[in-house]
Amino acid sequence: MTSRDGFTWTHASGLTAGVPSIGVIDPPTNVPNSDASYDVIVVGAGYCGLTAARNAAAEGLKVLLLEGRDRIGGRSWSSNIGGYPFEMGGTWVHWGQSNTWREMTRYQMMNEVERSFDFSHGVNHYELNITKQGYTMSHEKEDELLISALNKFTNIDGVYGRDTIPLPYDTFHTAAAKDLDNLSAQDRINSIAPSLSPQERAALESFVLLCSGATLITTSFHEFMHWWAMCGYTYAGCIDMLISWKFKNGQSSFAIRFFQEALATKRLAYAFNTPVNHIRDIGAAVEITTRAGTRYTAARLICTVPLNVLGDVTFDPHLSASKRAAIATGHVNQCVKVHAELANRDLRSWTGVAYPHNELMYAIGDGTTPAGNTHVVCFGGGNKPIDPEVDIDATKRAVSNMFAQQDETPQIERLVFHNWSNDEFAKGAWFFPAPGLLANHLEDMRERHGNVLFASSDWALGWRSFIDGAIEEGTRVAYEVGKELVELRNVKG
Amino acid sequence: MTSRDGFTWTHASGLTAGVPSIGVIDPPTNVPNSDASYDVIVVGAGYCGLTAARNAAAEGLKVLLLEGRDRIGGRSWSSNIGGYPFEMGGTWVHWGQSNTWREMTRYQMMNEVERSFDFSHGVNHYELNITKQGYTMSHEKEDELLISALNKFTNIDGVYGRDTIPLPYDTFHTAAAKDLDNLSAQDRINSIAPSLSPQERAALESFVLLCSGATLITTSFHEFMHWWAMCGYTYAGCIDMLISWKFKNGQSSFAIRFFQEALATKRLAYAFNTPVNHIRDIGAAVEITTRAGTRYTAARLICTVPLNVLGDVTFDPHLSASKRAAIATGHVNQCVKVHAELANRDLRSWTGVAYPHNELMYAIGDGTTPAGNTHVVCFGGGNKPIDPEVDIDATKRAVSNMFAQQDETPQIERLVFHNWSNDEFAKGAWFFPAPGLLANHLEDMRERHGNVLFASSDWALGWRSFIDGAIEEGTRVAYEVGKELVELRNVKG
Repeated sequence: MTSRDGFTWTHASGLTAGVPSIGVIDPPTNVPNSDASYDVIVVGAGYCGLTAARNAAAEGLKVLLLEGRDRIGGRSWSSNIGGYPFEMGGTWVHWGQSNTWREMTRYQMMNEVERSFDFSHGVNHYELNITKQGYTMSHEKEDELLISALNKFTNIDGVYGRDTIPLPYDTFHTAAAKDLDNLSAQDRINSIAPSLSPQERAALESFVLLCSGATLITTSFHEFMHWWAMCGYTYAGCIDMLISWKFKNGQSSFAIRFFQEALATKRLAYAFNTPVNHIRDIGAAVEITTRAGTRYTAARLICTVPLNVLGDVTFDPHLSASKRAAIATGHVNQCVKVHAELANRDLRSWTGVAYPHNELMYAIGDGTTPAGNTHVVCFGGGNKPIDPEVDIDATKRAVSNMFAQQDETPQIERLVFHNWSNDEFAKGAWFFPAPGLLANHLEDMRERHGNVLFASSDWALGWRSFIDGAIEEGTRVAYEVGKELVELRNVKG
Repeated sequence: MTSRDGFTWTHASGLTAGVPSIGVIDPPTNVPNSDASYDVIVVGAGYCGLTAARNAAAEGLKVLLLEGRDRIGGRSWSSNIGGYPFEMGGTWVHWGQSNTWREMTRYQMMNEVERSFDFSHGVNHYELNITKQGYTMSHEKEDELLISALNKFTNIDGVYGRDTIPLPYDTFHTAAAKDLDNLSAQDRINSIAPSLSPQERAALESFVLLCSGATLITTSFHEFMHWWAMCGYTYAGCIDMLISWKFKNGQSSFAIRFFQEALATKRLAYAFNTPVNHIRDIGAAVEITTRAGTRYTAARLICTVPLNVLGDVTFDPHLSASKRAAIATGHVNQCVKVHAELANRDLRSWTGVAYPHNELMYAIGDGTTPAGNTHVVCFGGGNKPIDPEVDIDATKRAVSNMFAQQDETPQIERLVFHNWSNDEFAKGAWFFPAPGLLANHLEDMRERHGNVLFASSDWALGWRSFIDGAIEEGTRVAYEVGKELVELRNVKG
């Protein structure tokens, strides 16, 4: 099946909208025409909504899952082109990510992963292209450079953040942690700038922006430190947990398990291609109106709509002023991720940075395609925005610019990408906050609104913005709704 | 409620069997007198059995849970004396432990943890007592010593095991990993001995034995390397994940949540004080006979009996020869854990080793009791065995010997312990294998036997022998049984 989402470009076909994915659901709905009542309506079929729907259905609740897209996965899904998976958003998993790995062990998928990095053959180095100067170094030197720079960046307390963020699941466990959310990445860099070499600074800045997809000024220093703490306060931990292991068959092979399990309970009704407009809490129940005007009712509603598009849904009664303030603020990640299939050079062992001058900033050799070409994944973002589908030649130039120091420019055979910024159901990539959003509004984002519960990786406590945070949140609200509805039945009956 | 398990000693009361625990279940059974049929019988109410029973009941199955003890938790439980929790077996948890942390986030218990270490006041150093020589050093020097020694011990491939055990959930992912299971910790120490200072060697050996509860000869080097890999291949990771964070209210406050949730489904029947003798697979069902001669029948049986006591249950048909060989081999952990409440010295910031001459080998300041005394937890094991309840004076001497370099010997106000070696339902502490057991029998231990499924942290793939591994395994088999029984019903129609 082919999703409406995503784009490909090849010489033969040019730019084409829509890419194949095993996450597209056919038939797109199984909702009966007759009126049906539900225990819980789940809005959104990303990992959070899938988890909530699956858990609720497994525990005996009658569930309706509504999704605006034609596929599961939300901001995390994979395309499959000629049997080769391209990760359109969200890629890496690790056993240090508790919710993700719990599900992977439950489905016995622990061995269905493979490494992204493979420093064993072909062009085997790190290429650091700063505007006016390029450097080539071994991966060992790359590690030394980033360790040195990141240690300076993170060493706010003499122990690399350990005293400031000792228990990262308790977001502002220390007052000092909350203070960090007043700072941007730019503020922190300014304060350590004299200690950084030009290479350290470019490597550090591009690494931080790879995490945030924003600008240094709009990147919360606290949130970066939270990632760092989750990764065990080391560069090696960051590499292990953030960018090492991916699903052999693409991550939609993981998401589909949640959906299939929910479906097997026979308590899941679902409708894809069904965006929602309006959510009304009528006290004894919640009524939802789709864009097409259809209404459904349930005892509870779980809303997994991401922060940046939550303002497009109207609520009656109105959401609290503080939750609306959080929505109005939004998050800042406008990451652009472009997969490039490259011929005439073996680049499987190559990684590179082109910063700050290039629209694509960070790239790694990520695989070898069935045609024997190298698959390189390139990242850009808010720092130097580009809409890849709007000017495909500019995108190809940005890919080529990543390879300034190669004696022969790699030949682009194929591009694959999804423009998250132009996606009406995302308006951005994975969550990343500007300074102040979490200190001011984390609790507001998590707060329920009568019979409506809000769940999203955007306001998870642990691996916030990761697949893991989505599962954390889906688990939390399904458990809460399950308990309430069981108690309600016991009272009634 | 007071469990039969465990011992306390005080001046006033002397040695007393049985300690209070919130894990004791009252009433001890809710099984109806009338004949009842079950979908699944779960044998054992440790974390593994609790998880399996809870998940199966939550997903609609009718469950019978049988347990030989008067309490939940198996080898992992806490006593509560005057409101202060003593951990009788199993203590520490961490967000890098996926199954444990997933459950803790689901129950929103992420903030119900506190640190074991507190290097902020009183006697603040590390005391290393080797038979003929004692050393006192700062905790920073302790870290340096252990980092140096552990890096030598683990650096089998130039990258501290990363290449040999890259994916620890896939147990023998590389042939080199399997080779490690031919070696004992003693073998490895012999090969690096020339590089170790006497202090490094004593610190290293006592650390390794703290993990295994065995002797260096009976400690599989592979299993230690597996722990190391799970901890991110660093000493800091080991400290973080193995020994840093514990439940403020004792870990039975965690285990009880599983039991209560299972009970709330109204699909859980249970009987404590009910050891099982015999398990018979009659094809369409499994029949179990208790020690008291009562028989129960179910479609499936989940046996969570630990490896070292699995031989006390008989099976018809016989278990496979290879599974019986694994059972006959058993595991080697005979850890002795003694809590000491100490007056007249503030030892909250103290840690110490007394090795190899003393029956208790490793100790840390773990808390301050309501009486204002220091709570120190001491570990011994197979290297120099002691049965604490058999000779309480010898136990007190062993506690005192931990403090050879204190100018004033701490006054023992209370001892609290459980003798796992003399426990008929454990015959040892947490699982730790001798060389060869896993390479030869891991798959055998995990293999089902007709309608009987075997689940235990003893043969988990990730945090094997941890609470986390128990939840991993309980999750696995409940999922497997759930799928089978749903399919069976669909076929029957």
